[in-house]
Amino acid sequence: MKKILVTGCAGFIGSNLVKFLLNKRYQVIGLDNLSTGKKEFLNEVLTSKFFTFHKVDLFKNDIKKYFKNIETVFHLAANADVRFGLKHRNKDIQQNIIVTHNILEAMLKHKVKKIAFSSTGSVYGESDQIPTKENCPFPIQTSLYGASKLSAESIISAYCEGYDIKSYLFRFVSILGEKYSHGHVYDFIKQLKRNKNELRVLGDGNQRKSYLNIEDCLEAMHIAMKYYKDDINIINLGTDEHCTVKDSIKTICKIMGTKPRIKYKGGKRGWIGDNPFIYLDTKKIRATGWKPKFTIKDSIEITSNYLLRSEWLLKKK
Amino acid sequence: MKKILVTGCAGFIGSNLVKFLLNKRYQVIGLDNLSTGKKEFLNEVLTSKFFTFHKVDLFKNDIKKYFKNIETVFHLAANADVRFGLKHRNKDIQQNIIVTHNILEAMLKHKVKKIAFSSTGSVYGESDQIPTKENCPFPIQTSLYGASKLSAESIISAYCEGYDIKSYLFRFVSILGEKYSHGHVYDFIKQLKRNKNELRVLGDGNQRKSYLNIEDCLEAMHIAMKYYKDDINIINLGTDEHCTVKDSIKTICKIMGTKPRIKYKGGKRGWIGDNPFIYLDTKKIRATGWKPKFTIKDSIEITSNYLLRSEWLLKKK
Repeated sequence: MKKILVTGCAGFIGSNLVKFLLNKRYQVIGLDNLSTGKKEFLNEVLTSKFFTFHKVDLFKNDIKKYFKNIETVFHLAANADVRFGLKHRNKDIQQNIIVTHNILEAMLKHKVKKIAFSSTGSVYGESDQIPTKENCPFPIQTSLYGASKLSAESIISAYCEGYDIKSYLFRFVSILGEKYSHGHVYDFIKQLKRNKNELRVLGDGNQRKSYLNIEDCLEAMHIAMKYYKDDINIINLGTDEHCTVKDSIKTICKIMGTKPRIKYKGGKRGWIGDNPFIYLDTKKIRATGWKPKFTIKDSIEITSNYLLRSEWLLKKK
Repeated sequence: MKKILVTGCAGFIGSNLVKFLLNKRYQVIGLDNLSTGKKEFLNEVLTSKFFTFHKVDLFKNDIKKYFKNIETVFHLAANADVRFGLKHRNKDIQQNIIVTHNILEAMLKHKVKKIAFSSTGSVYGESDQIPTKENCPFPIQTSLYGASKLSAESIISAYCEGYDIKSYLFRFVSILGEKYSHGHVYDFIKQLKRNKNELRVLGDGNQRKSYLNIEDCLEAMHIAMKYYKDDINIINLGTDEHCTVKDSIKTICKIMGTKPRIKYKGGKRGWIGDNPFIYLDTKKIRATGWKPKFTIKDSIEITSNYLLRSEWLLKKK
């Protein structure tokens, strides 16, 4: 039976991925330091005899032993906080760059041949090319998060060139769905639960983003890893739609049955390094035959309903 | 008087830069751990009362105090060994990425507003676009050296976006000139000094590269930093010429008066991650009015003659 290692297995994407892989009958080992990941997200898989969880810090601990007899690593562990990148600058460097290097060294040690990596559309900075292709003009980094993810991508690529390792570098738009636990939908619902008559919004609400449903995302990764066979495979994952922050607010407010006063903080960007328009070209992933099952509106609804029935999650931090 | 900090001040480019800046009447503070830099390269400037040298390790030591009252940092310290990147993989991560982050933190602490950084044409991997423009299609990294330099560039850019810092990211071709002390011209002369009848060459000798003279390089940096005023300025530095490894061998052998048997190791690339054709588009630097004074052949001659009269340097390591 094929053994797969998932780092960041208790995070939003990681915990959904573990479930997805178990359904496909893989044996899965999951690592997470539970700093932002949540043990609760693993409740439904912890009972499976095909899943083993280790609480381990990929930055501080020696992690090599977990890579023995692994066929594929899904490296999802990261500091995923784009917005506060500049408030704790060491985190992106340590968690996103050095940890990725640790993973690669562990892979070499145990001759693991394949890695899938969760990168981000943020590596395009504020591209002039929209929708943005994988080979768009060489971008300039605008966020420390994007910079650290591009660094990780680059280091992985160099290892693939030098050793017998194949990589899948997935550049995600924002992902939505069950277990989603940070980002603007989470923030808005949390605010409206506290006071349904007022909503404070960063930026002017006209920031345009694309969103992908977690189920579509996992299916796309799975298909891409069968379809593309280069040593280094760089693939955008997104939908052919985008919506404004104002659009998401409308959907959320409708679900919650409220019409709050909305206070915009103003400015094109929600924060320093925020990209006012993220929209990725998805021809490469669509060439595999994959297409998303959910619209952005579907995903916002699913996410909102999940959060509204998960009060424990809204109360966290 | 304006104070300038030069990291890697005892290296090939660093030591030439210190001399250049002193001639322009700047006050210069130089840092180097002398791991690959050579104290001998500083002999002619150590007597200047406008130059202060500190032997310090930018990775291990707390370096913040050196950044007090500095106007501009020239961050040249690096593991510059492209070829052996995969033999000591920690070095590129520590010396090129983490050290750059340490420099940026020290700059924030003392409100230093300007940084010039020695990046490399290697960040273009094996670009399809030749000559390669600064905004060529998003490249894939092929060497750990290139990956680490792109990481450093990206982190610097993110700091410029978040804070009041201006950066000049210079993507160099190979630089030649006095005090040049690693790379193929150095290797060839060292071999031929030992045995003038035989020369072993990595690859097939048809690798094409562009080279820039150190004096032209320093002048270009100086002019670019006056001419371009964006927050993030990315500038290729090279010449509008290129030559093959075979061409350089011809020039070197003529100077040394020898006709060795040449043994090619074969293959398009000299080593894993070697780019068989590096040739950068230089329109952006030429728009400043700058143009190189030396041809590639001039530079190979100057470098060869320098090495032939610097036996101590050929004997090192």
